[in-house]
Amino acid sequence: MILNPDQLNTNKDDISIHKDQFDNLASSLSRQNIQVDQIVNKLANFQIAIPSWALGAGGTRFGRFSYHGEPSSLEQKLEDIGVIHSLTKSAGAVSLHIPWDIPKDYNAIKELANSLDIKFDAVNSNTFQDQPNAKESYKFGSLSNTSQAVRDQAIAHNKEVINIGEKLGSKSITVWLADGSSFPGQSNFQTALSHTQNSLKDIYKSLPNDWKLFIEYKPYEPYFYSTVIQDWGTSFMLANECGEKAFTLVDLGHHLPNTNIEQIVSTLMLKGKLGGFHFNDSKYGDDDITVGSIKPYALFLIFNELVYGMENNPQNPELSWMIDASHNLKDPLEDLIQSLETIQITYAKALLVDQTKLKQAQENHDVSLCQEILQNAYLTDVRPLVKQARLQQQGALDPLKAYRLLSIREQLIKERGKNTVATGL
Amino acid sequence: MILNPDQLNTNKDDISIHKDQFDNLASSLSRQNIQVDQIVNKLANFQIAIPSWALGAGGTRFGRFSYHGEPSSLEQKLEDIGVIHSLTKSAGAVSLHIPWDIPKDYNAIKELANSLDIKFDAVNSNTFQDQPNAKESYKFGSLSNTSQAVRDQAIAHNKEVINIGEKLGSKSITVWLADGSSFPGQSNFQTALSHTQNSLKDIYKSLPNDWKLFIEYKPYEPYFYSTVIQDWGTSFMLANECGEKAFTLVDLGHHLPNTNIEQIVSTLMLKGKLGGFHFNDSKYGDDDITVGSIKPYALFLIFNELVYGMENNPQNPELSWMIDASHNLKDPLEDLIQSLETIQITYAKALLVDQTKLKQAQENHDVSLCQEILQNAYLTDVRPLVKQARLQQQGALDPLKAYRLLSIREQLIKERGKNTVATGL
Amino acid sequence: MILNPDQLNTNKDDISIHKDQFDNLASSLSRQNIQVDQIVNKLANFQIAIPSWALGAGGTRFGRFSYHGEPSSLEQKLEDIGVIHSLTKSAGAVSLHIPWDIPKDYNAIKELANSLDIKFDAVNSNTFQDQPNAKESYKFGSLSNTSQAVRDQAIAHNKEVINIGEKLGSKSITVWLADGSSFPGQSNFQTALSHTQNSLKDIYKSLPNDWKLFIEYKPYEPYFYSTVIQDWGTSFMLANECGEKAFTLVDLGHHLPNTNIEQIVSTLMLKGKLGGFHFNDSKYGDDDITVGSIKPYALFLIFNELVYGMENNPQNPELSWMIDASHNLKDPLEDLIQSLETIQITYAKALLVDQTKLKQAQENHDVSLCQEILQNAYLTDVRPLVKQARLQQQGALDPLKAYRLLSIREQLIKERGKNTVATGL
Amino acid sequence: MILNPDQLNTNKDDISIHKDQFDNLASSLSRQNIQVDQIVNKLANFQIAIPSWALGAGGTRFGRFSYHGEPSSLEQKLEDIGVIHSLTKSAGAVSLHIPWDIPKDYNAIKELANSLDIKFDAVNSNTFQDQPNAKESYKFGSLSNTSQAVRDQAIAHNKEVINIGEKLGSKSITVWLADGSSFPGQSNFQTALSHTQNSLKDIYKSLPNDWKLFIEYKPYEPYFYSTVIQDWGTSFMLANECGEKAFTLVDLGHHLPNTNIEQIVSTLMLKGKLGGFHFNDSKYGDDDITVGSIKPYALFLIFNELVYGMENNPQNPELSWMIDASHNLKDPLEDLIQSLETIQITYAKALLVDQTKLKQAQENHDVSLCQEILQNAYLTDVRPLVKQARLQQQGALDPLKAYRLLSIREQLIKERGKNTVATGL
Repeated sequence: MILNPDQLNTNKDDISIHKDQFDNLASSLSRQNIQVDQIVNKLANFQIAIPSWALGAGGTRFGRFSYHGEPSSLEQKLEDIGVIHSLTKSAGAVSLHIPWDIPKDYNAIKELANSLDIKFDAVNSNTFQDQPNAKESYKFGSLSNTSQAVRDQAIAHNKEVINIGEKLGSKSITVWLADGSSFPGQSNFQTALSHTQNSLKDIYKSLPNDWKLFIEYKPYEPYFYSTVIQDWGTSFMLANECGEKAFTLVDLGHHLPNTNIEQIVSTLMLKGKLGGFHFNDSKYGDDDITVGSIKPYALFLIFNELVYGMENNPQNPELSWMIDASHNLKDPLEDLIQSLETIQITYAKALLVDQTKLKQAQENHDVSLCQEILQNAYLTDVRPLVKQARLQQQGALDPLKAYRLLSIREQLIKERGKNTVATGL
Repeated sequence: MILNPDQLNTNKDDISIHKDQFDNLASSLSRQNIQVDQIVNKLANFQIAIPSWALGAGGTRFGRFSYHGEPSSLEQKLEDIGVIHSLTKSAGAVSLHIPWDIPKDYNAIKELANSLDIKFDAVNSNTFQDQPNAKESYKFGSLSNTSQAVRDQAIAHNKEVINIGEKLGSKSITVWLADGSSFPGQSNFQTALSHTQNSLKDIYKSLPNDWKLFIEYKPYEPYFYSTVIQDWGTSFMLANECGEKAFTLVDLGHHLPNTNIEQIVSTLMLKGKLGGFHFNDSKYGDDDITVGSIKPYALFLIFNELVYGMENNPQNPELSWMIDASHNLKDPLEDLIQSLETIQITYAKALLVDQTKLKQAQENHDVSLCQEILQNAYLTDVRPLVKQARLQQQGALDPLKAYRLLSIREQLIKERGKNTVATGL
Repeated sequence: MILNPDQLNTNKDDISIHKDQFDNLASSLSRQNIQVDQIVNKLANFQIAIPSWALGAGGTRFGRFSYHGEPSSLEQKLEDIGVIHSLTKSAGAVSLHIPWDIPKDYNAIKELANSLDIKFDAVNSNTFQDQPNAKESYKFGSLSNTSQAVRDQAIAHNKEVINIGEKLGSKSITVWLADGSSFPGQSNFQTALSHTQNSLKDIYKSLPNDWKLFIEYKPYEPYFYSTVIQDWGTSFMLANECGEKAFTLVDLGHHLPNTNIEQIVSTLMLKGKLGGFHFNDSKYGDDDITVGSIKPYALFLIFNELVYGMENNPQNPELSWMIDASHNLKDPLEDLIQSLETIQITYAKALLVDQTKLKQAQENHDVSLCQEILQNAYLTDVRPLVKQARLQQQGALDPLKAYRLLSIREQLIKERGKNTVATGL
Repeated sequence: MILNPDQLNTNKDDISIHKDQFDNLASSLSRQNIQVDQIVNKLANFQIAIPSWALGAGGTRFGRFSYHGEPSSLEQKLEDIGVIHSLTKSAGAVSLHIPWDIPKDYNAIKELANSLDIKFDAVNSNTFQDQPNAKESYKFGSLSNTSQAVRDQAIAHNKEVINIGEKLGSKSITVWLADGSSFPGQSNFQTALSHTQNSLKDIYKSLPNDWKLFIEYKPYEPYFYSTVIQDWGTSFMLANECGEKAFTLVDLGHHLPNTNIEQIVSTLMLKGKLGGFHFNDSKYGDDDITVGSIKPYALFLIFNELVYGMENNPQNPELSWMIDASHNLKDPLEDLIQSLETIQITYAKALLVDQTKLKQAQENHDVSLCQEILQNAYLTDVRPLVKQARLQQQGALDPLKAYRLLSIREQLIKERGKNTVATGL
């Protein structure tokens, strides 16, 4: 299903109301010496990858309620992303998961992606599940396993993922190592860590020169006592040991309660070691719910550090952005549209922070003023900026409204049926 | 120091910019069928009590950095609140702490308060510290102590607090019972709870007919293993056992990590047992920092329940509102001004939620739309509404700016000196 | 597979070493005026129900690694429990889950259970998953759903579960209501709570006179923003509104971080409203791992309250005990054996606490001594008492050792094959 | 007050009961091929430093209940430690806090310490409080402050602390940097971290060749939004940048909820970067309560890693051990005696773990057996081993009992009076 730009914004009143609101906001921001057009351009250029596993319904250990019209092939997944990208103009990339999404015909897939203006972002390996004909089981770990044979299988899989990525034009691989233990004593921490180091170094050796290796961290789940790469400190240490093409990847849901994530982001950028970002939100654990649905101000504080780092840390490479959420209750496409909207809104707010005034207030220890500066940016209703950025690129003024107006889900169900199941979790 | 309304808004440009912004917002809200003037009136009528202990610098167990020009008498505390109220028009009440603030001349104090348009909200008892000439020590508890003599002293103190409150025109007493234990085994939970029940019932017997008894809860601190009234469930149970004039009081900082506070608020209002609210914010424990400085969206969700409850729960009485924060790093008056601003802003956003549409979306299980409705209200920049409400009452357009422009702190230091210390923590 | 008591303890040396260790401990305890034989009898009488879903491998949302020789019918589940009970003499009950375990032939099942000395403990309903031919979906809740039709279906299911339980001789039903929401605004808290109250009252009306209704609580999962029955306070309130046959059930894993669970247990017993207990352990969330594998001292403190309550709270009925764990990495039968061992050990330690001395020390505020008294009991190696209780009843001295020596898992695999899958999660 | 060994164990029966219990345990352990005498020797050699600030009553921000007979000079503090060491034979070191404990006469202090068999462990600097005549304030940070003058003062103070330590024979300095911020925006994370790096490097340059620099970390308190050295990763990074004499110091209370501390310990020892350890316990935050009073099994798991590391990680230096607790409710000396007892007990249990069998079970992925091995050690009542180690060195069989029997606190009150106040928090 290809969306025609003409279909997206059919209501003239909406456009005219937007123009008024944008003009009001622009003049108000101009009074604060903010270059509105630069911000709109930055928003227009900001692209977030959609993971191929986020297009179907996710589940919990207690069950799964599937969604109608789910994509059942890689082609259909790309088409879904194409729909989102047409509407939002901010989803111009896909992040593939192997082995769920191995292309059968590389050229065809690349052409399809190209026609939809979608790039191939980081590829993801999977060593947390056993594959049907695998010789070794990952039940007790993969890259960290005490068994050489299991480690070798996991290393080989990661190298294969790199190969697949190369054929598609990806430039990075993300390793989420689920390995860990559920009981004290089950695993020797030092042995597991050493094996992991060596396995990652081995994978790193196969990394093409223009690639990056992203190492995720997570404190728990699917194991419930320990995780080999439990925190940013461990990931950072491993990345340093691998070399200069290895980086830490931050997933917002992978932290203990009350962690100051924005400070982690800031430290990693100062050290030139932040590679990428997985967006989602959570109240309790790795809940993987819609970006910004629970803690939007925390997201703003993180973006404030990201904006600062992108301005001030040339030692850090360009970041990979991805949404990594699980859609149990909503239409996955609607959820992704809401997530993209929130990311754009939050980025826009962070761009409004007056960094010069803030620095001055910090040096004066004028704590009240520091807070005023941040909150002034946060409280501003920036939706007109985000809409303007979309309109500039012929996207939809209001993507969710357009998605519903165009009855896209209904068409997908008609095409695909009610009982398709997307590969994934 | 009495502030003259004429001093507050001297910049004509600011006023005219505000008028524009208010008009723009008002017309945008009118398109959504929102009665803007009703909202402005609700904001104007919303008054939050300032606790008498929040006007000086607070400390931590690691030390205290005092602030210059602190009030050193009850009269000076009232004057400080008078300043804040003149600026914000939303701090028209004081909550006294006994024994820190026992008036020497009741009539004089009442006259002073009256002249400043300040009412006497809930009075607070203190049984977590020993007083100089007290016979019994609260080291091992007060209302819950195994010793009858200690309990009697604590009960008598609470009754005295009620007496003091009656003379001033207060209509409620807040009991924060710090009692608890720091080590397993130190205390028998059932004995401590039973003693507490009986002590509260005894205090309740002395409660005037038109008074309310507010029972706070808190999971830990100053004791580190258990607290007699550890959660809302315990407070609710105790309030039910006391009678219909007893209520639960929610302090935002008194919860375990990740607690869904808004749901607690909702349940208590449904049962007609929410008595009052202590505002502050926190990232880790009972951090007592500025309202909305960490989790403004959580505050919005709480206000959403409060607004719903005030509309739909006639079984619940009018609520007592109080700021309960500790000001370690900022000028306490600036901190209070910021807190009041945030409360007004958040209340305004909650008033924008379209309850009819929300109910409809909930019944349709249209989860994406439910989220849109809440976030549409939250993302709106409502500051013009709050400013308008203040202007209507001859308050300051921008209270913090006016406070600084008028050099109020400098004048307080000139009057009071650098080394005054306010009673409190 | 029926185990013959003669098979269980074939090593004479082990028995003789045990006798020595038991005698040493008994004489040491006698010096402390402890009635050793009474404790051994209490241990012998303590029976814990095994849930029918705990006999196969559990999984996480990231996958499941199945275990060989899993039971594929209710009969085989009972046989597995029979094996555990033969070895431990402490698993003399089963807790069935409906619809996973609806008997086809009630008489045959009752006879089988009887022959294995297994009683039917609480029956469990399931309204968190959709059943193949169900008319209504529980995706957006069951007893709390805004739709009358869904609520009716869920109520009818609970009534059917009671009917099934009656035919088997159960005397209680456990309702774990998973209902909740994953996004702010998705659900109206007051509506959901009111519907739940009414639904529970309706179920309660069908409760036989000699039955009990257990109401679980849980703060999150499978929903990630709110849960209708989020804490003990809500469960307690609902149980009070249902009537005197309704009680709160505590599952150890269903609490926010740092919750003082032992105090909850104590309060509920004081109020006569603790109905039952689900044992497991966790470090992060509802991890459902082996009892006592992470926080054995917390378990001891809980048992200390349970022992105190069983001695001092005649207002509270006899408790239902159940293990509720998920076995992802271990042989489920081994895991259950370890869980039962830990429960018995912890109960034994709690029975050693000198309640008279403790009460005295508490009244003297002798905090150091209070701690000494608890820790003296906890530090005692009570394994000889637990072994003695098993030997008295012809169980195995060391159940796990016997289980392995007898190659029970190998036999189960031979009988059942490698690829059976138990119903459950 | 000097305790005579003859006074300590006057009850012959106690000795004879101990001998029996020790023999029974020794023969049981010998059957498991454990070298009992080696373990007893290890216990005898294990010495833990007492911080000079732990000998008086601590407080909370809500107040302080002082204890009678507190030491009011450094000499009296050493005498208190001398009492504890005479009784326990495990407190043969003191850790001084500057400026609270600057000696007036170095030789006299050294002689006194020597006569009491007390060594000078790490010295501690203080840049979290302002000193009476200090030129600069640490209200907004010390080593991380934006002001060069403040940083210089803090650096100079640390260098002075090293000088004082050198005169006493200390070989290490512990830097607990409280610096942080209480509000988003108050501090620029990157600037604060860079300043801290440079300040630490400057201090490091003044470090004598045979000294070590210990860098603590802590997530929050006394600041409530961010801490410059928030976690082990930051401390480890800073230590690496300082050089090979810089190490991370772990304080048990300085972690977010649910942190797997034992894994951190393990990683640091593998990397040769664990310098020291501060013992205490907590349920909620940095509660600083008696070691092992809340989570004794977590302490065991940590000791299991420490024992493993001391055996297998020659790359890591000998560790500095210190108790760092705050005594609000108990006699501080009793609390320290209980803490030392728990540390010794836990160390003994960890020494019982059969590392060879454990390694084998880990390689076989025999998770149940791994758990059995750890729990077998943990469940063993090792108190006879600890007593034996004390008796060998002429300490008290039961230190707390002896302390009370000898009426030591009463004597201290007689000597010092009721209203002395120890320097400290």
